[in-house]
Order: sequence, then structure tokens, then C-alpha cells
Amino acid sequence: MNRNIQEIITQMTLEEKASLCSGLNMWQTKPVERLGIPSISMTDGPHGLRKQGDLADMSSKTVPSTCFPSGAGLASSWDRQLIQEVGKALGEECQAEDVQIILGPAVNIKRSPLCGRNFEYFSEDPYLSSEMGTHHVYGVQGEGVGTSVKHFAVNNQETLRNSINAVVDERTLHEIYLRSFEGPITAGDAWTVMCAYNLVNGEFCSENEDLLTDVLKERWGHQGLVMTDWGAINERVKGLKAGLELEMPYVGPEHDGMIVEAVKSGELDESVLDRTVERLLTVIFKGFDNKKPGFTYDQEEHHKLARRTAAECMVLLKNEDNLLPLGPQQSVAVIGAFAKNPRYQGGGSSHIAPTRLDAAYDAIVEMAQGKVAYAEGYSLKGDAIHEDLIAEAVEAAAGTDVAVIFAGLPDSFESEGVDRTHLHIPGSQIELIKRVSAVQPNTVVVLSNGSPVSMPWLSDVKAVLEGYLAGQATGSAAADVLYGAVNPSGKLAETFPVTLEQTPAYLNFPGGKSEVYYGEGLFVGYRYYEAKKEQPLFSFGHGLSYTQFAYENISIDKDQVKDTESATITVTVRNTGDRTGKEVVQLYVKPLDSTVVRPVKELKGFEKVHLEPGEAKTVSFTLDKRAFAYYNTEIQDWFAETGVYDVLVGGSSVDTPLSVSINVISTAIPFKKVTRNTKFYELLAIPETAPLASELMELSMERIKQMGAMFADSMDSGLTELFDAVVHWKKYDGLRSIGGMIGGMSEEKLTAVIDALNQKLGL
Amino acid sequence: MNRNIQEIITQMTLEEKASLCSGLNMWQTKPVERLGIPSISMTDGPHGLRKQGDLADMSSKTVPSTCFPSGAGLASSWDRQLIQEVGKALGEECQAEDVQIILGPAVNIKRSPLCGRNFEYFSEDPYLSSEMGTHHVYGVQGEGVGTSVKHFAVNNQETLRNSINAVVDERTLHEIYLRSFEGPITAGDAWTVMCAYNLVNGEFCSENEDLLTDVLKERWGHQGLVMTDWGAINERVKGLKAGLELEMPYVGPEHDGMIVEAVKSGELDESVLDRTVERLLTVIFKGFDNKKPGFTYDQEEHHKLARRTAAECMVLLKNEDNLLPLGPQQSVAVIGAFAKNPRYQGGGSSHIAPTRLDAAYDAIVEMAQGKVAYAEGYSLKGDAIHEDLIAEAVEAAAGTDVAVIFAGLPDSFESEGVDRTHLHIPGSQIELIKRVSAVQPNTVVVLSNGSPVSMPWLSDVKAVLEGYLAGQATGSAAADVLYGAVNPSGKLAETFPVTLEQTPAYLNFPGGKSEVYYGEGLFVGYRYYEAKKEQPLFSFGHGLSYTQFAYENISIDKDQVKDTESATITVTVRNTGDRTGKEVVQLYVKPLDSTVVRPVKELKGFEKVHLEPGEAKTVSFTLDKRAFAYYNTEIQDWFAETGVYDVLVGGSSVDTPLSVSINVISTAIPFKKVTRNTKFYELLAIPETAPLASELMELSMERIKQMGAMFADSMDSGLTELFDAVVHWKKYDGLRSIGGMIGGMSEEKLTAVIDALNQKLGL
Repeated sequence: MNRNIQEIITQMTLEEKASLCSGLNMWQTKPVERLGIPSISMTDGPHGLRKQGDLADMSSKTVPSTCFPSGAGLASSWDRQLIQEVGKALGEECQAEDVQIILGPAVNIKRSPLCGRNFEYFSEDPYLSSEMGTHHVYGVQGEGVGTSVKHFAVNNQETLRNSINAVVDERTLHEIYLRSFEGPITAGDAWTVMCAYNLVNGEFCSENEDLLTDVLKERWGHQGLVMTDWGAINERVKGLKAGLELEMPYVGPEHDGMIVEAVKSGELDESVLDRTVERLLTVIFKGFDNKKPGFTYDQEEHHKLARRTAAECMVLLKNEDNLLPLGPQQSVAVIGAFAKNPRYQGGGSSHIAPTRLDAAYDAIVEMAQGKVAYAEGYSLKGDAIHEDLIAEAVEAAAGTDVAVIFAGLPDSFESEGVDRTHLHIPGSQIELIKRVSAVQPNTVVVLSNGSPVSMPWLSDVKAVLEGYLAGQATGSAAADVLYGAVNPSGKLAETFPVTLEQTPAYLNFPGGKSEVYYGEGLFVGYRYYEAKKEQPLFSFGHGLSYTQFAYENISIDKDQVKDTESATITVTVRNTGDRTGKEVVQLYVKPLDSTVVRPVKELKGFEKVHLEPGEAKTVSFTLDKRAFAYYNTEIQDWFAETGVYDVLVGGSSVDTPLSVSINVISTAIPFKKVTRNTKFYELLAIPETAPLASELMELSMERIKQMGAMFADSMDSGLTELFDAVVHWKKYDGLRSIGGMIGGMSEEKLTAVIDALNQKLGL
Repeated sequence: MNRNIQEIITQMTLEEKASLCSGLNMWQTKPVERLGIPSISMTDGPHGLRKQGDLADMSSKTVPSTCFPSGAGLASSWDRQLIQEVGKALGEECQAEDVQIILGPAVNIKRSPLCGRNFEYFSEDPYLSSEMGTHHVYGVQGEGVGTSVKHFAVNNQETLRNSINAVVDERTLHEIYLRSFEGPITAGDAWTVMCAYNLVNGEFCSENEDLLTDVLKERWGHQGLVMTDWGAINERVKGLKAGLELEMPYVGPEHDGMIVEAVKSGELDESVLDRTVERLLTVIFKGFDNKKPGFTYDQEEHHKLARRTAAECMVLLKNEDNLLPLGPQQSVAVIGAFAKNPRYQGGGSSHIAPTRLDAAYDAIVEMAQGKVAYAEGYSLKGDAIHEDLIAEAVEAAAGTDVAVIFAGLPDSFESEGVDRTHLHIPGSQIELIKRVSAVQPNTVVVLSNGSPVSMPWLSDVKAVLEGYLAGQATGSAAADVLYGAVNPSGKLAETFPVTLEQTPAYLNFPGGKSEVYYGEGLFVGYRYYEAKKEQPLFSFGHGLSYTQFAYENISIDKDQVKDTESATITVTVRNTGDRTGKEVVQLYVKPLDSTVVRPVKELKGFEKVHLEPGEAKTVSFTLDKRAFAYYNTEIQDWFAETGVYDVLVGGSSVDTPLSVSINVISTAIPFKKVTRNTKFYELLAIPETAPLASELMELSMERIKQMGAMFADSMDSGLTELFDAVVHWKKYDGLRSIGGMIGGMSEEKLTAVIDALNQKLGL
């Protein structure tokens, strides 16, 4: 519907405008009936709808909805289309429930495996996380329902999330933490963004102008609105000025009143409020106009999608002697309370009431043609070892061909609001696995957990299937994979460490009581393990299949590209086994040399391909500037340095059999102005300034050599290494080094040289 | 001599004043003859005098002086009196050579073992480094000669030292990098400070007001002058304003002219220049007045001191089966070119012309009564393996009771101006050690190197003596230790890593080409290994003796102290062996709990004690606020949190058999003002605000519990963990949390509460 929002704003009173800046209640925006401004509704997400039956009553019951796998699982599918399908289903459920915005996707980076909310997040890698988030948004918003990309930003722990100040350097902020939000906001065009509770570099996210205005609105061109996480407000007017539109939930008239007062006192320009209201109205009307009254969805179909999705998300970590898939004739001992009472979602605001719930035991009984024994193995209450339960499990396992143990983290180990303090599963489960595997060589462990766990028992079992928190169809999906109805194709979207001490953020997680220092910088996830040459338990991108894939060929359309162009990489992958399967083809870019510290390599592309036995497919990747660039803090922009980059392709971060090199030529200038401290190497990399810079540098090196020779005579063993070093590193010196002690050029001449260089660059 | 410096300044022309702000030539300050302002001379140090014969001629030869062990060795003595004696000797040599300032001590922190100049620096620990530097200053300045504490600050690498920007967080800057300078400047009252070449957090050290004015002059009350490292000037007038007094060396009239122009144009207030000149004149006259014309020193006595010092500095790293000390009757194969051509000092500006040079081979021949064979083993030219030299060495070793291999880093591996890129000694030496130890089970390795090396051969040899770069008496001192004339008592002032990847700064050393990010923060040296639970090759503080020491008793005069008081710890140490020896008693403080991230423990005291066989001595340590404090960035001051601290005492960082606990009570306020974001925990720790804070917090927790209960009914499994977590972490919330979504208190009331709290604290 066409409507003149500007016109509506002119008709609004100051009080009405201010009133729009906070909610009506817990879940809705305020209407202004006299002007036809409706109220819209939002609910928790992101992998299912958590809608209270009566939105105005915070004690009312949650309505049932489909519980899909949570973010950690979804990302393990590495399947853009699949997550878009899930998003579509979520959008449909929102329409059916008259909800205009579902709060998600959650795209915070998994800085530490201990973060209690990791189960909701996608990955340790910002590119993968951003791609997943983008397709989630595509799916939901395609149904006319808004998303809220959260939690913006640098909210990577639950400990003290209301008050902690995350201190992170500018490059890391952009290359890791903000990068994850970029896709859902720019390509995805998310209607809304939810700001986080915490502070980033000293400012609350809800009033952080760098984040809300400079990055979000100006750099990324976000046209939607920013809302607070529930209660994440500090100073209301400061927040509004910084780019926060909507405070949620409503907590009384005080904050709206402050906005009114600020305008009246002149502290807040009314035009700023008008712009805020314009954004609010745009989203409110968009939600209203896209309502589909009377919409219904097929719960059965959504459950099927949940089952298909869950199976695609599971990661086969280990499969010795091809123990999996199980044969239908094998007798099997199903062990572990999770087999009958699945752990399938995490605690907190994303905890929903599922439409149904599949237990693995039931699904296995259905698929198996041989004997199926069951033993509880451990109690769901506490983690004490129950000898009787273990003895029962050992007995069951000893009498069958195979034992499948359902293990993982109980609810109490993982929740929004609480970080884990260790990587262990309960001691009772560890003991169970040890004892069962001692009598049954064919033991499989199926894990349900939202974040990596340690596996001191790994060598005792033949197969491990990582199920993550796979939603309401977790049990049937696990059975699908165990029995080969689905060939597993999930790949880890995060590194599994051997020990906690080994993890990148170990020294600074969860930090002090007021501040957490992101000292590991860019070295998050596999970027850390690779740079430190640490061997993890399972690497990023790892995941087995019941078939095998061969990487046969790689080609590139040009071996040299300017940063304004793009290159196309083509690879051929073949299914060399005898089962249909899917492979996640992963592409990493590795700079061979750089003037800044960079990770060894970074994920810059992936495609999931379906291959029949013997079939080969060609996969193409387009690499543009951003695939090679780092965030340059001087120009506050991405910069792809001139140089050689290797492009590595394979099925995991530690298995990239194909590679090709590409020469990237920068056409950008990595500084705003030539100054006395602009470095020779920067000027040498720019065609316009290279000749003069080279001449000046040569001149300077000659003088250093002369001086070195003079000094060398003055002592038994000379200062020669020192002068040699100065010559060796000359190109990294600033221009000023051609004056002063060694250079000898006058300040006047130096200034003229700098002017000349600026002129050549038009700066 | 009493002289009115203010009066002199009033008589100086603007040009004369400006002229004083840079040198006369390479090594001297400018005189102003008409006003009786003399020129003073300075020379390179710090562990010997590098004075050119003609100070005005940079090609003139270096005069001979005593070469003492360089900083890395000196610190390993952990002997304050000894380094003071060395300082005294240096001062005497300066007086004899008419030098008024010797450039040193060098107290930069060993951030990475790769730093090419580590041989000149003391330690990875700022307290140890500061203590060593302070006593160096005491020694030199006691002779009426000035020191120049260098390189101020955060100059921890040679790579791109002229242009690199060291990015370091404020706490780390103060707790680690500046802390090392504090003693020599405050307690030592060093006449001068030399600023470093590099930038710190975006500003060149030579124009870094934070460092030169806020920290040095205001916080530490430095009354002397700051000079540049040679050529470390960027913008002259900016430097002067920031607190730089003297530019060295003289490079022409341009910079003095800039100062004149700046005063004339009004850019620089002449009173600022006057204050600069006052500092310059104070030091110049102090140097002049303290001259001792005709002073001579006894070269033989200084050589003896160099020998005694060198022996005290050596660290016995390993001594299986008590292979050392050698018996005079044992036949010995002396192997390695270093035995006859010692490596005894590093390259660069500290490289001096020694008065004489002792070779280990000669000293061993003198001490041994049995056969002494010699084999070169490897060539000093390059690191190629020479089979003939190795064969000769193997033959020599096979025919004797013991083999002593002199190994380490050649000159070309370690120098000012160049960082190392690996931890290896030359391949030819590694091969030599492997082959000799294969035929001779009684193999000793004596190392000469300025910084840790890797030891893949460690398990092949029975004993390792780390000699560092021990100065001109290195050979005789090594023989003294090998034959037991001196019982070794050195302890490592730095951690020896197993691998380079294991080192704290590995991910960020030497950084990019413009910037190096100190991501490891506080976790430098043993602080890193302990926190990360990494096992190094040899730990900080480690060092063996030919006798044994027992730590028998510890007591503390009070178990609770206010931060305004101090506590005395007393320990008893006994020599339980049968040889006279010295033990370095080390005291570490370990906070049991903290609201900020802290190292596991930190060195806060040490004493070297001389003990006859069977003798016991009592050693006392006084611990004041600083022993418990961290640097609080909010108040920009040291802050000792209320809490329990363990005091650990022993002979190494990994062997502290004695411990006692102490309760520290803070009397300070860790913020400047109570604000809406002041945390409950901060207010609860202050007696004046604790009752009100506690009351408010209880109220708030009640409301959270109520709300949690309301929500818990709304879903199958509740948000209870989430609300529990909020209650659990309540005390770390800011005051504002009593308002808003959950708290419910009005802004007006909140403001009143904040005012009341400020009033209670008089803020």
C-alpha cells in the first residue's frame, strides 16, 4: 500500500513520535490509532517461534511451533538453500500466528566454545556465519515477515552480558565480529537489527554511534530499524542520537518522556526524532501490509522439513571400519536416556514448545529388523554415576552386534545467560561410554550438544555422530543417518579443541568483571589453530560421508586480477564411492605475503553438491576484492594488497587437495594523504608514485651504506650488521627517513617531495 | 657548585636556548662559551664503554674498556649488589675517559626470545628488570656519571624499530612495559632517559606526551632530561612540547631553527623552551661538576670483577648424575671453536673493544691436572657441517673422561638491528653435540648466546651451562664454574621455550610492516606459560647449584593488611649440601580471586643469599600495596583489590615450597565518580557504600525472581536458568539495572541514589 510516511510524521505530536520509540508491552509496538498507525508483533526465535498465546500477558503459555535445529546445527549443513527453506517455514508459521517480526537470525561469532549461547550461533567463521544468516533472512522475509539480526555486536559470551565491555581492536572488529552481520543486513536487507546488551570499546551497543550509525546505517546502508535486546537500554536519548530506534519492551512512560523533554530543551533536534520515526513507521507499515490473515501451514510438512534438515546438519566425526551405516539385520543396543528423552534445543529465550518430538529409540525400532535392546545408562537428573544403569547398559551392549550410545550435554549444561566453564559431558556418560565400549568393540556415540565437548573416550569408540541440538526431529533424523537412509554431509562450522587451554580465547574468556579483552584478535577458531600450529580434536570443515569424493581439477579464468575485477575458479569433484552423497566444497584464500599480520588462510567460498555414485560436477566460485582484502584501519575500508594469493579447495580446512595461485593488483590507495611518515613500500606499490619513491629510497640507501662504512672502521667488529639491517628494511621506513640523521635531506625539500607525491595521487 | 640556572636562562638568546636542544656532534652537547655553559660527552654502553677516541670524528677507533656480561647475563645473577659494583666500575671507566653519561641501562622487556637485542636487556619480568636497572644506575651515578635509561618505551623488537607502531593496551603498558623503567627512574633517579625509535599507540616515543610528560615527568617526577635514541626524531617542535629535551646527534641547524621559528610564530610558548633548557642545563652542569680530571682505574681489578661477575651470571640448567663440577684429575676433551674464540658480546652499538679476552680453553688447561684435548668441532664461518671437524671432535671425546662442548649463537645470529627468526643454534653445532654425546656419555654443553635457544639434543647430554654473553672473562669464568671454583648460582631471568610456536607473542611478532599488536597483553614470559599451562623447556627462575637448599619456614607479621600498610614475610633457607653456595630466594604473589584478569602469579621480591654448608639464614621481604596491585585504567593508578593473596616462596617459579596467605583490605576507590554504570561489586567493597548498595541489590534481586517466576509458567521448560543467571551475576551489574525493564526504579530515584552514594564517598 502506498502511503506518505513523511506526511504522517508531520501530523504526529511530539509525544506520539516519542511514544513510537518504545514498545506497547513485551512484544508489540504502540499504535497511534487516530493516524492509522498499527501495532505490530514480534516474537523470539530464531529456529522456531516462541510466541506467547497472549502477547500482552507475559505469563501466558507458548503456542506450539516447529522446532528446527538451532544455529549450530543449521550451519553444519553448509547449505544455503536448506536454511532458506527453514526460514521460509518460519515465515509461514509467523504468518499463521500473526507475527510480523521473528527475532533472529543470531550471527554472533563463536569466540570460545564455552559461550552458553553458542548453540544459537552459526560459526567461528564470519563468512560462513554471514552466508547462513543471509539465507535465513531471505527465507523468512520472502514470506513478508521481518527478521532481527542479533546481537549487534561483539556479544560473544553470556557472562555479565549486561555490563561487560568487550575491548576489541578495529581490524578484528570489522574482519571477524562485524563481518558476520554484513550479509544479512546488506544482501539480506533485514528489516531490523537487534543491538546487544554489552558495551563495545567503552560504549553500550544501544548507544554506540560507531556501530549503529557509522557502520550499520552509513557503511551498510541499512534502511530498517534498530531495536534493543530486551532491556538493553542505558541512556535513552543518547541511544536515540546514536541510531537506536526502538526500545523493547515497554517499561513505563519515563523513557518516552525523556525524548520529549530532550526535544523541548533543545538537546535533541526534532529532525533526528523524525528520521527515527520514519524508520519505525517504514517497518511497522511493512509488517502490517504484509500480513496474511487466515494463513495456515501444514505442521506435518514442517515436521518433515525439520527431519530432513536435522539429518543434513549432523556431522559424522569418526567412522572406523565403516561401522556406519548400520545394517538393518544387525542387533543393536540403544543406550542412554537421550534416546528416549532427546536433548534437542537449548535453554533461554529460544526455548520453544514443539509441535511433536521424535525419539531416536522409536525411530530405530522402526528401522531395525534385528533385535533392539535399550538401556537408560545414566540419569537425566544430575551427573552422578549409577552403577546399576551402567551394568544394565553393559549387559545390553555385550549381547548385540552394535551399541549406539546417545550422549551429550544436559539442559543444565547449556543455556542463554550462562557460559560453560569446561568442555566435559557429564562424568556419568563418560563412564558409560568407557564401560560399554570395553565390552562392545562396535560402539557408536551420537552426541547432542550445542557446542564442542571434549572426548577423552574418542579412541575407545569406532564412530561418533555429532547431532548438535537438532530440533524436534532429532531422533528420527539420527536414525536416518545411522541406518544410511541419509548419507551424512554435515561439516563442522567450528573447531573442536582437545583441551580448553588450547582454545584461542582461553586467556581472556570470559574476562574480568567489567571488561573482556579480545587479545587473540583475528585469531579466532581455525585461524588460531593454524597460525599456532595447534592440533585440534576435529578441524573446522571436517565431516565424513558414507561415500568418497575426489577433487579432480582446478582452473582459474585469469591468473592476474585487479581489485576492481573478479576471478572465477572452477573445480571438479567426483563421487568415487558407491553411494549417493553430498560434499561441501570449501574454498580458502591464503595470502603468500602481506604487510599486515593475517591468518594463514580464510574461508571465502563454499558450495554443497549432490553427487550420484561416479558422478562428477563442476563448481564455480567468483572471487572479488573482498576475498583477498583485509580491513585497513587507516582508510577505514577493505584493502586488497597487491601480491600473490593461493586459492585452496577441498573438503575440510585441513584437506585442500586443489590449489591455484592468483596475482592481485591493487588499484586503491591505502592512506588518505602522503605524509612524512608514509612508508616507501606503500608508495612503491602504487604505479603513480613508484618511480619517485624508488629514486628517493635508492638515494637514501646509498647514504646509509656510506655512513656504515665510515663507522665500520671505528671498532674491532663493526656496526655493519646494524647498517645492513637499516638498508634491508629501508622500504618499510617512512619518508622522513630521507631527512634527519642519516638521510640528510632538508625539511623544506622533504615537504616539497611530499607535496609532489600527493599531487601525483590527486590527494 | 651552586649556580643560578634560572639566571643563566634569562641571559640566553632564543637561538642559544634552541641550540642546546640538539647535540654538538655525534656524542656531545653544545657549549655556550660566553655564559660558561660547558659541553658534556656521552658514549654507548651499557655493559662497557664504547667511546670513540675522537668524539668529533665518527670514524675514529674505539678505546679499550672492560667488557662485562651483557644485560641478559647480569640479570641471571639476580644480584643487586653485584650489578651495582659493575655500575660503579663503568662509572670509573667513564671518569677515566672523561665521559659524563653512559647510555644505559637497557630495560626493555623480553617480549619474544627472537628480539635481536635481548642480550642487552634484563628480563621478561618487569620487577626483576627494574631492580637490576635501578642498581646499575646506583652504581654508575655513585661515581658522578649519568645514565640514560633506555629505550623508553615498548621497544621490544629490532624489526622496523624506526617505524613500527607498538599497539599495547593501557594495563599491559603500565604493568609490564613501563613498570620495568620505573625503578631506575624513580628510585635510581637516572639523570637521563633515552626515548625509543618506535611509536607507541600511534605516537612516536620522541613526541609521545603520555610517555614523556604524563608518566615520566608528572607521575614519576623525573627531573632529568629525555634524549632521543640516535636519530629518533620525527617532528622537532612537537617532540619538544611533548617533553623531549635533547635531540641526538647533531644533524645540522635545521631543527634548532624550527624551535626558534616556533617561538617567534607563537606556536611554542617560550616558557616551555625555558623549562626544557633548565632541564638540559641541570644535567649538563651536573656532569661537568662531577668530572674527576686525571682519574684512573685498575684494568686488572676490573677484569677480575668481570670474571667474578660472569661466573655469578651463568645458569646451570641441567646436571645429571652430578657430572659437574669436573674433577681436576679427569681427562677432558674441550670441543668447539668458541672455546678458543669466545662469543662474549653482541653486535651493534654496545659492541666494545675489550681490554683483554679470556678463552675457556686456556683457563681449563690451567685448572685441569689430567689430559686436555681440543677439537674445533665446527667452523666459525657459516654453519655448514664439516665432517672432518666433527670426526676429530668425536675422536677426542671418545678418548677422555668428559667432553665439554662450547656452543651457542655466532655473531651473525644476534645483533642490534636484526631479530632472529628461529631458536636454533647452527646445524653444525647440533650435529656436533649429537655425534660427540653418542660416544661420550659424560658430555657437558656450555652455551654462549644472548637469548634462549632450542635444545633438541638436551636429553643426549648430562649437563648444560648457560653462559649467556658473559663479557671478556667468559672463558675463565666458565672454567671457574666447570671446575667448581665457583658454585653456580645464576637463575633464569626468562623462560626457555621448547618451540617458537609456544612463545607468548608468536602470533604477533614482529607484527606487520607498520604495526605490531601486543595481543598477548599481560601474558608475557612465565605469566603466559603458567596461565596457558604450557610446559617450557626451562622455567623462569630455574637454575641449579652444586649444593642443595631447603626452604624451612615461612612467617608473616600480620595476616591482614590495609593497602596503606605493609607486611613482612620471613623465610628460612638452609644449605643442606656440602658445598658453599648461593641461593636466589624468589617471592611470588598470587591473587586468589580478582575482578580483573590477572596472571597466575607475579614476582614481587627476591634475595640472593650466601650459605655455608649446613648454614641457615632468614630472609625478609616487605610487601606493600604495589605487591598486590594491578593498574586500574579507570583511576589511572595502581589498585590493590580487597581479597586474599597467596605469597609463594622458593627457588624457581615452578618450585615454591613455602606459602602463606594474606588478606588485603583496599582503602582506595576504584573509580572517579559513582555513575549509573558503577557496579554493585565496586560499591560493596567500600565500607561507606556497602550498606546502601547491598540494600538496593537485594531489592533488585527480589524483583528479578518475581519476574522469573511469572515467565517460568509461560513455557514447557522455563527461562528459569536465565533468570537464575541474572540473579547470580547481579553484583556485577551497574546501578542502572535497578531501573529499567526489570528493576523498575524511576530515573529520578536512581539519580538520587547515585547522588547519595557520591556524597558518602565525598566525590
